[in-house]
Amino acid sequence: MKPVNLAEKLAQFTTHWDPHVIADYNDNEVMVVRFQGEFPFHLHESTDDFFLVLEGEMIMDLEDSSHPVGPGELFIVPRGVTHRPRAEAECKVLLIEPKGEPNTGDAATAAAKPRI
Amino acid sequence: MKPVNLAEKLAQFTTHWDPHVIADYNDNEVMVVRFQGEFPFHLHESTDDFFLVLEGEMIMDLEDSSHPVGPGELFIVPRGVTHRPRAEAECKVLLIEPKGEPNTGDAATAAAKPRI
Repeated sequence: MKPVNLAEKLAQFTTHWDPHVIADYNDNEVMVVRFQGEFPFHLHESTDDFFLVLEGEMIMDLEDSSHPVGPGELFIVPRGVTHRPRAEAECKVLLIEPKGEPNTGDAATAAAKPRI
Repeated sequence: MKPVNLAEKLAQFTTHWDPHVIADYNDNEVMVVRFQGEFPFHLHESTDDFFLVLEGEMIMDLEDSSHPVGPGELFIVPRGVTHRPRAEAECKVLLIEPKGEPNTGDAATAAAKPRI
């Protein structure tokens, strides 16, 4: 039970689209992740998807709109909504998803979500 | 479905210990709040309590330890753990709690949590 410094956690890896778990909140994993390039379009059948941009800018593409999201901005994708985060330059993000939720919405293609 | 700017939401009120709901994540309310002074010691019987410091510094007092938490630092108080946030100078915080959870742990003394 102690403070978790997000920048210190992010400094422990450099890979993109590779969320690392830094804390638990009830049945959710709190993660930090670096985005660069384009993630595949996907959806989560049974959960919302929580993104808070810490540094840089991402674009959240939905099926019929695109939303720039900058530092200190939150974007919550409701369950069942197809989305694709992308970032031209590297973007650092705080991500919250339920434990065991595949980041791609599909266990076959999901990242490992190591704990740091 | 659009980005939520935390600073813009915080600019909509100046009161302390008065969380305002800015988004929903599954069954949780995502809130911004300004801390200054001392909150009462309390606990949440059935939920963890999520604090992310956005600006300023808070101290999270537990029964037998005190933890300074600065910008970009997260502190998650596990369910059932007695705690007290306090801040000498104003501190801005992103707070996540389940919908309907009293911020004091007690409905009789809880803040209203308006939505902005």
